[in-house]
Amino acid sequence: MKIRMGMIGGGQGAFIGAVHRMAAALDGQIELVAGAFSSDAARSKATGRELFLAEDRCYGSYEEMFEAEAQLPADHRIEFAAIVTPNFLHFPVAKSALEHGFHVLSDKPATLDLAEAKELAKIVARTGLLYGLTHNYTGYPLVKEARDIVRSGRLGAIRKVIVEYPQGWLAQRLEDSGQKQADWRTDPKRAGITCCFGDIGTHAENLAEYVTGLKIEALCADLTTFVPGRVLDDDANVLLRFHGGAKGILHASQISIGEENGLNLRVHGEKGSLAWRQEEPNTLVLRWPDRPREVVRAGNASLGAAAKANTRLPMGHPEGFLEAFANLYRHFAAAVRARKEGKPLPAASLDLPGIDDAVRGMAFIEAVVASSRSGEKWYPFSY
Amino acid sequence: MKIRMGMIGGGQGAFIGAVHRMAAALDGQIELVAGAFSSDAARSKATGRELFLAEDRCYGSYEEMFEAEAQLPADHRIEFAAIVTPNFLHFPVAKSALEHGFHVLSDKPATLDLAEAKELAKIVARTGLLYGLTHNYTGYPLVKEARDIVRSGRLGAIRKVIVEYPQGWLAQRLEDSGQKQADWRTDPKRAGITCCFGDIGTHAENLAEYVTGLKIEALCADLTTFVPGRVLDDDANVLLRFHGGAKGILHASQISIGEENGLNLRVHGEKGSLAWRQEEPNTLVLRWPDRPREVVRAGNASLGAAAKANTRLPMGHPEGFLEAFANLYRHFAAAVRARKEGKPLPAASLDLPGIDDAVRGMAFIEAVVASSRSGEKWYPFSY
Amino acid sequence: MKIRMGMIGGGQGAFIGAVHRMAAALDGQIELVAGAFSSDAARSKATGRELFLAEDRCYGSYEEMFEAEAQLPADHRIEFAAIVTPNFLHFPVAKSALEHGFHVLSDKPATLDLAEAKELAKIVARTGLLYGLTHNYTGYPLVKEARDIVRSGRLGAIRKVIVEYPQGWLAQRLEDSGQKQADWRTDPKRAGITCCFGDIGTHAENLAEYVTGLKIEALCADLTTFVPGRVLDDDANVLLRFHGGAKGILHASQISIGEENGLNLRVHGEKGSLAWRQEEPNTLVLRWPDRPREVVRAGNASLGAAAKANTRLPMGHPEGFLEAFANLYRHFAAAVRARKEGKPLPAASLDLPGIDDAVRGMAFIEAVVASSRSGEKWYPFSY
Amino acid sequence: MKIRMGMIGGGQGAFIGAVHRMAAALDGQIELVAGAFSSDAARSKATGRELFLAEDRCYGSYEEMFEAEAQLPADHRIEFAAIVTPNFLHFPVAKSALEHGFHVLSDKPATLDLAEAKELAKIVARTGLLYGLTHNYTGYPLVKEARDIVRSGRLGAIRKVIVEYPQGWLAQRLEDSGQKQADWRTDPKRAGITCCFGDIGTHAENLAEYVTGLKIEALCADLTTFVPGRVLDDDANVLLRFHGGAKGILHASQISIGEENGLNLRVHGEKGSLAWRQEEPNTLVLRWPDRPREVVRAGNASLGAAAKANTRLPMGHPEGFLEAFANLYRHFAAAVRARKEGKPLPAASLDLPGIDDAVRGMAFIEAVVASSRSGEKWYPFSY
Repeated sequence: MKIRMGMIGGGQGAFIGAVHRMAAALDGQIELVAGAFSSDAARSKATGRELFLAEDRCYGSYEEMFEAEAQLPADHRIEFAAIVTPNFLHFPVAKSALEHGFHVLSDKPATLDLAEAKELAKIVARTGLLYGLTHNYTGYPLVKEARDIVRSGRLGAIRKVIVEYPQGWLAQRLEDSGQKQADWRTDPKRAGITCCFGDIGTHAENLAEYVTGLKIEALCADLTTFVPGRVLDDDANVLLRFHGGAKGILHASQISIGEENGLNLRVHGEKGSLAWRQEEPNTLVLRWPDRPREVVRAGNASLGAAAKANTRLPMGHPEGFLEAFANLYRHFAAAVRARKEGKPLPAASLDLPGIDDAVRGMAFIEAVVASSRSGEKWYPFSY
Repeated sequence: MKIRMGMIGGGQGAFIGAVHRMAAALDGQIELVAGAFSSDAARSKATGRELFLAEDRCYGSYEEMFEAEAQLPADHRIEFAAIVTPNFLHFPVAKSALEHGFHVLSDKPATLDLAEAKELAKIVARTGLLYGLTHNYTGYPLVKEARDIVRSGRLGAIRKVIVEYPQGWLAQRLEDSGQKQADWRTDPKRAGITCCFGDIGTHAENLAEYVTGLKIEALCADLTTFVPGRVLDDDANVLLRFHGGAKGILHASQISIGEENGLNLRVHGEKGSLAWRQEEPNTLVLRWPDRPREVVRAGNASLGAAAKANTRLPMGHPEGFLEAFANLYRHFAAAVRARKEGKPLPAASLDLPGIDDAVRGMAFIEAVVASSRSGEKWYPFSY
Repeated sequence: MKIRMGMIGGGQGAFIGAVHRMAAALDGQIELVAGAFSSDAARSKATGRELFLAEDRCYGSYEEMFEAEAQLPADHRIEFAAIVTPNFLHFPVAKSALEHGFHVLSDKPATLDLAEAKELAKIVARTGLLYGLTHNYTGYPLVKEARDIVRSGRLGAIRKVIVEYPQGWLAQRLEDSGQKQADWRTDPKRAGITCCFGDIGTHAENLAEYVTGLKIEALCADLTTFVPGRVLDDDANVLLRFHGGAKGILHASQISIGEENGLNLRVHGEKGSLAWRQEEPNTLVLRWPDRPREVVRAGNASLGAAAKANTRLPMGHPEGFLEAFANLYRHFAAAVRARKEGKPLPAASLDLPGIDDAVRGMAFIEAVVASSRSGEKWYPFSY
Repeated sequence: MKIRMGMIGGGQGAFIGAVHRMAAALDGQIELVAGAFSSDAARSKATGRELFLAEDRCYGSYEEMFEAEAQLPADHRIEFAAIVTPNFLHFPVAKSALEHGFHVLSDKPATLDLAEAKELAKIVARTGLLYGLTHNYTGYPLVKEARDIVRSGRLGAIRKVIVEYPQGWLAQRLEDSGQKQADWRTDPKRAGITCCFGDIGTHAENLAEYVTGLKIEALCADLTTFVPGRVLDDDANVLLRFHGGAKGILHASQISIGEENGLNLRVHGEKGSLAWRQEEPNTLVLRWPDRPREVVRAGNASLGAAAKANTRLPMGHPEGFLEAFANLYRHFAAAVRARKEGKPLPAASLDLPGIDDAVRGMAFIEAVVASSRSGEKWYPFSY
């Protein structure tokens, strides 16, 4: 049987909910069977109907859903909760899911602040349930390959890391138009202490550390709110220092007009360099001091095991954002199945961003905001 | 309820069957409920088990499947058959499906030869059922946009069309290794009178005519078998003449080492030009005599209705091969639903390649082979 | 002392004359000391004045120039003639230069027709003087590298060659505006029997043969005049067959709007492939069946001797059209110097396109035009 | 007559001297007539001989050269001095040249430190002679176009500026091999207080301010020496704040393996964005919130006057590093000629980087080094 999923959030007009549903559906391992898609019960049911769900499993609140599902027979009830709400609900929903016995796969950032994240870590530990965080960009096969190349030592010790995440969609006051995505992300009550950095800067930080295996130990941040009337940051420039001596630059932006979803990473080591861009995710460029640049392509026979395990199609058949996202769902479902069957987690599932990334990510967000407000040059980050 | 699909072909080791299943699953509109995945009943059942199908709906042959499914209650039996077998089975399976009352969505080329295609057209007409052909590259949003731009007259009358489909995977005798894809494609009994041209040249022809709206009226072909010991062509160079005076070049290849899946199209009109490449499908380049080149990107606010209706994600979140393929499944499912509900077909479904493309495609394949064997320069193509 | 050059053609408003002058000046090996820049003596002198030439060495005709220069002391008179006139003058000017004892470096195509080219070859042979033809695209370092890679056998036997030369500047009747370049190129009296093919198709043919070392043995051409009122072709599509079994496609165009100067070459062998584009001339892409694509860059330490000998700057300092053109001038000047000093020609000078390319190029132009008019599929080319 | 140039530095084995000579020669406006190419008189003469100079104008020192040339007749002596020595000689040579009455065109950075630069400014003012600084990247036509687009207001007020200058050639201790370029650049006595930043960071700063017209008012720098045993920096990361509120990032590196000469600039305004890369200098990308990206190409009919005045060839005929460098020489020569003829400087010459850029550049270099040593976050830059 497929793994049974319940979704919280993702009602009509939402963006990320639909993404999660497609990602969950793609590989035929997961079935969406229940949902609390909206805090308005009628809208939740309307969404459920469009998704061909049974009427009685479309709930008006997450509390109601977890309560009701927990009463269903074990082979019928949801097995995990997919959380796709605005940030401020991530923690209470995850807490409730876990306490009702459901595994959790949550959108990022994990919580509204670090305190919540630490609390969540305790609950995860206590319940022993699975917790996954959709740092979806780590799901790309060539990101896996990049990580494996660094790990293998082929680049030598890493010296410099440049990670960028420019977007342009908030260059104007889109939130005034009622656009749902812009509305909650720019609202401190629902988004937390940062807009740009919490939304995308955190992906950049996660990607840089995931690929290089290095830990940031100090940072110097300059957050800006460019659009008049906005409260939270819409741009971030950060200098980085990594444990062991590597230096770095991280910048993220929502006001860089014409930039779409430009996450990209360059890693320079003593022996070689790599570069990867999310918008052309099937290409990884390797550069060496003394021979031609190499262009690694998804599907290449020469790729490592992790990249291959996250690829579905032959070379030249481009996989994209949804496929990378689906890799997280697939591996999470495999973990749920393994747990159910009392087996050890499969290798590919060990790789999933989890509760440690959740806490570290929130700590980093708070450090960036604190650094930006500080006159001290280097803000220590020791979490 | 989701639309119910039965699949023929696509057992373990197959490539295109998995593609069709992912494409069908992505948008949550279709449920795979039955299959004859292999002519070996045990293997068919094994595949079905991996796909979480009910054991009794995994059949050992398509005849058995259509027979049995036709006996099931109307709201339970399959509604359409997805055909993903090697070429030589396309016709008999489609015929049987239609005659048992099931709509058909078939991989290309539609049949083994033109005679079968004409026969199939009669059956489609007689049964009045839906027939779709997965010329999946027409499912890309920017291919729709390209077509709409040509149609709008913005490029002026078209003068020159260059369509290429280079691949390199058959540069060696891969068929000797037992690789399944290579094995049947190079075998005249299962593939028909052509390997390279029937497999990919036909996509190129379809794409060029789809985007430009022009009809080829004469051609001059040079097919080659480069790999020793191979019977069918593995390379094709063709000059084209279109009705109305446009000229063109079509070349396809399976021996162009390093080429992955390089389908691409350039269209030059009296007022402007466009270019699109499958390997970077989210970019469409427009060029004008007197102002900067324009780079249209999937998700751009300025896109036309058809492109938008075939896009799921915002700019910079790359969609790829599976999403384009899924567009065909989504629109086909919508057509099946409309038919069931007695409604007119939705606009997006009218666009699907169907039985006319099937017949024209087979006629073109035969014309190319005939031209290649002929000493006459221009071979008329008047179908 | 620098080598002394006289120029014929290249008066005000000309394009290619200025190119030749910059190419000649770049490396400091050549001095322009005389010119017959225009058939109008006053205009010729005006041009000469702008170029800081002595008034008495600006001539009103090439006959006058060669006559007068031949009277000057040996260490003062011009040593070679650079011919940059419209096509119809190439032959008479070259003939006169050679017969007055001057080496010749001529723009292409070498003559107005094949008969003239054959006659020219006899004069070159008789006089024993140097004759160079500015197939300037062979001057790029990565074109040399491409040739050396093919020669080395790294790609294996060549199977398929695709050479394209699209431009868009003649998509409208530019010749009606009095634009000088368009005016003579579209005029059979001054350009010969072809416009597009003679102007740029001939570069494409030369490049393909230069890099692959293969000889075309048959062709099938389709020339078109798209712009109403024009007499000569403005577009050319050609299928090629090479001696030894390789196949090819050559297409050139002056009506492909938005194309700038898009000469490019793809060569596919049994073991690997290469691709080069004139508009990004410092990049050469190599592709292999089983490992990542390699991107060779001008200035790479791994380049061969010929590429290095034609590069002036380190990696990342782009050299372009003029530098490639200047390579021809530099090597021609070195040849003139060697001849003067009674030394053997330097290796780099042996590589220059010369009288054999001149004759073969004219023969090919005539074969293409004949093929286009013929109903026979394959036109033999045996020159 | 051509403008007469004397060169200081640029003997055998030097890189930048040859660049300056080619740049000076390209447009036929300047003649190299004298040189002190080396402090070793014999080597200086040997270099001069290769350049076809008169033996008696190849000097063993700059003092000797200026002394001797000043004695020559006015229409024979050099008119300007091109300084291409290592940094530590820039000031004394420029001072001497000016005091002997010669205009100066100097490589950058202008001097060894700010104090010298201020002193130089006084000498320039006192002598009233021309002083140019070869910030050669401003010579690219599309850099001019970028500046004009910003100036025109099409991008709106500028918010964010990202300028990068990565190289990889010093990733190892190349200076140990005796490589001349590496040797002096890593030596504080000859290079000054910085290696990477003074060599290339200063180009990045100059480019950003040139294009945007904005002035940096504070900065936060992190310089690093990655290669063991090296004294000066080989990497620099800098946060920028511009007068008026724009933010920025500047990073430069000589240890980023595989990077060639990767100077590039992104400018984001309230209404649009632009991006330019030195390695593909003939392309300028403009991006807008609501319509397709525009790709401006050198030679486009739609370019502004400044871009056109700095372009020699039609679209698609790539110009590169030398042509951009030559633009500075051409405009400097025009300025020398205008001065000689008592005419106002031509418009294109007003644009040349001069003594103000020289002083500002040195002040910026010192501020970056000071900031890097400071624990204060923001280092004011008010020059």
